[in-house]
Amino acid sequence: MPVSQRPVRAGIVVTGTEVLTGRISDRNGPWLAERLGELGVEVSHIVCVGDRAPDLRAALGFLADVGVELIVTSGGLGPTADDLTAEVVGEFAGRELVLDEAMEERIAEILAGFARRFRFDAEALREANRKQALVPEGATAIDPAGTAPGLVVPTDGPTVIVLPGPPRELKAMWPEALATDAARSAMAKVTPIHTDTLRIFGIPESELAKSLREIEGDLDLAPLEITTCLRRAELEIDVRYRDGAEGVAKGLLDELADRFERYVFSRDGSTIDQQIASLLADRRIGIAESETAGLLAARLTEIPGSSAYMAGGVVAYSNEAKRELLDVPEELLERHGAVSPEVAEAMADGALARFHADVGVAITGIAGPGGGTDEKPVGYVCICVKLASGEIVARDPVLPGDRAEIRDRSTTVAMHLVRRLLRGEDFPL
Amino acid sequence: MPVSQRPVRAGIVVTGTEVLTGRISDRNGPWLAERLGELGVEVSHIVCVGDRAPDLRAALGFLADVGVELIVTSGGLGPTADDLTAEVVGEFAGRELVLDEAMEERIAEILAGFARRFRFDAEALREANRKQALVPEGATAIDPAGTAPGLVVPTDGPTVIVLPGPPRELKAMWPEALATDAARSAMAKVTPIHTDTLRIFGIPESELAKSLREIEGDLDLAPLEITTCLRRAELEIDVRYRDGAEGVAKGLLDELADRFERYVFSRDGSTIDQQIASLLADRRIGIAESETAGLLAARLTEIPGSSAYMAGGVVAYSNEAKRELLDVPEELLERHGAVSPEVAEAMADGALARFHADVGVAITGIAGPGGGTDEKPVGYVCICVKLASGEIVARDPVLPGDRAEIRDRSTTVAMHLVRRLLRGEDFPL
Repeated sequence: MPVSQRPVRAGIVVTGTEVLTGRISDRNGPWLAERLGELGVEVSHIVCVGDRAPDLRAALGFLADVGVELIVTSGGLGPTADDLTAEVVGEFAGRELVLDEAMEERIAEILAGFARRFRFDAEALREANRKQALVPEGATAIDPAGTAPGLVVPTDGPTVIVLPGPPRELKAMWPEALATDAARSAMAKVTPIHTDTLRIFGIPESELAKSLREIEGDLDLAPLEITTCLRRAELEIDVRYRDGAEGVAKGLLDELADRFERYVFSRDGSTIDQQIASLLADRRIGIAESETAGLLAARLTEIPGSSAYMAGGVVAYSNEAKRELLDVPEELLERHGAVSPEVAEAMADGALARFHADVGVAITGIAGPGGGTDEKPVGYVCICVKLASGEIVARDPVLPGDRAEIRDRSTTVAMHLVRRLLRGEDFPL
Repeated sequence: MPVSQRPVRAGIVVTGTEVLTGRISDRNGPWLAERLGELGVEVSHIVCVGDRAPDLRAALGFLADVGVELIVTSGGLGPTADDLTAEVVGEFAGRELVLDEAMEERIAEILAGFARRFRFDAEALREANRKQALVPEGATAIDPAGTAPGLVVPTDGPTVIVLPGPPRELKAMWPEALATDAARSAMAKVTPIHTDTLRIFGIPESELAKSLREIEGDLDLAPLEITTCLRRAELEIDVRYRDGAEGVAKGLLDELADRFERYVFSRDGSTIDQQIASLLADRRIGIAESETAGLLAARLTEIPGSSAYMAGGVVAYSNEAKRELLDVPEELLERHGAVSPEVAEAMADGALARFHADVGVAITGIAGPGGGTDEKPVGYVCICVKLASGEIVARDPVLPGDRAEIRDRSTTVAMHLVRRLLRGEDFPL
């Protein structure tokens, strides 16, 4: 469902054969897309292209034909011969490359610093990096965050913002690139876009699709752009709209929140991770993991400041570790097996006791690909969350996916069980 | 450096507004690119496009203009209105959509099974999914791995393979799609491509670039496509070539292996993770983590069968946990601080003892963004690897990056220290 006004549009070009051969997953494209979206710019395409000049030129031409006002490129600004973005963009813009002497000096200084710190050959480095100071005539150079300067290049069609590939450098240089006259004039007609997000855990995507179709019968959803996305076992609904469509958006979200009341866990953009962090506050959490082997503990500490609530964790991969570090009784392991609700609860007890924690979480399961049986197939996971006061929420679902997905989804289920227990809610998954 | 023959080329189109808004990172594009590359097909572009018919049509037209023989699309085959790939591809091919009744029956059976297992409304599901059985005339339908069938659609230009978005389904359906007549004829002229990979840890990318330039003076590297890529703190060099260029490739790789001897850890495509798994064999490893909070344990257990060597781990985020679960002396914590080489070694000792392990690994550090000091800045990480026999390798580097990167790189450094200790090598990082 398209947004009704013609929005300002942008295209993103990610260069690098390593992205195109599948060796690495690009993170710049999504990051730039998210930033542009926040500004109210609609991204038409993200094009990944190898280090081949004709393919890069074709990608720029394609986006110009689509009619975007802005193109942002990442990568291809390094010192090596396959770094050819500046040259190709200059050609695309019909502008000669000229040496920016101030920039050359600036890069030389940066490199001299590197060379001192890491004891490289400064002269070799400088030689290699001289081409990084070649700038299309009339373009604005953006100060490097690493060694490669960025560029903002006006053309007859879209303005082209050229940024380096290392994500940290690209992110650091983005604000300065946006602030240039050429970028500002390309984006002059942007009208702000709003995004509301609803997050749901525990219902399938098809149920949501059915509801959306039904709601469409009552509400005119045309002014909204609605996307639904299944991510880490959660459903996320993004509703994007421009000024004037607040009422429709609220109507839709209220209706969805009504229909899926118990399953909607976030309407304010907060993630389950952020919610757990604030629900825990200064309550101490202790983790006992077998199948996930540290993933839940790592996930709980992704957020800075997590030492306020993270007491610690035990990765009890072996039965011996379950006995010795978590005091799981041998008899339970023998009678029910290491993957059982009984052992999960004993592990949670162990985590509570060992870490003097207020909340104990345990995960034991079969991540596969081997080790499954008819009774306990691959994906069977026992999760137990227990408070020091004795309250408990536990589940033993069979989760879909491959080994990595099963392990990741196990942590998501555990996070949601922690949330329910801390909020005093419990109902079937 | 392009490969000299004109290779068979393909383009990839990834659909989904959620990819384009940056909410999720696409994994299908890189996966398909890697599979195509292994077959000897050169990927010209990966284009991500939202759920907008004109933009999808433009992307298909662009790739046809580039001259690819094959287009592979992922996503947009679901039951909802914004799933429009089949329709747009049909239009692009100039073929009407017709109901494939056998496919409709097949989807209905699959959905009935789902509905029984998850207690959905089967009729509503079936209604929603009927459109998934609409197939462009003359196209070959590929059996669904989930609920959405794939398509192989011949056109006047490139053959289009249409696959669903969920990575598990896409991967499962790929072989059948490739085996269709239309896909085989599009790829009839493929000549095999070979890829040799060299992996290096411990030197900067600019040193490698300098060496490549020097080698180019002696060797004609034109028949090779060389890409270098910095990933998870390792440098990866991929050399791709067609039949006849084996000698040049070997010459280059031998020369690089000579120059960076101590830093080259892989010439056979193996990753550090695989190497650690086979170096450990049945030696038991115990982990003590503070800063990385389970990431290293989780990484070591990504590989199926890791229970052969994984004894267990302790996430000792608090000093209390370091004392109680790892027997780190209070006096060490007070005198040197929790982030110190001394405490790292005591943690490794604790892991060895608690898990009766042969190898103990400890990581303690400052992941940031807060908590840094002049003496111990953000990124300062103390890593200690110790054998039960007392041999030890330890380092305390300052790692670059944000919180997530510092934590991830810490695990990479730890993996390489384990490798060196198990191989009896030690030299400066």
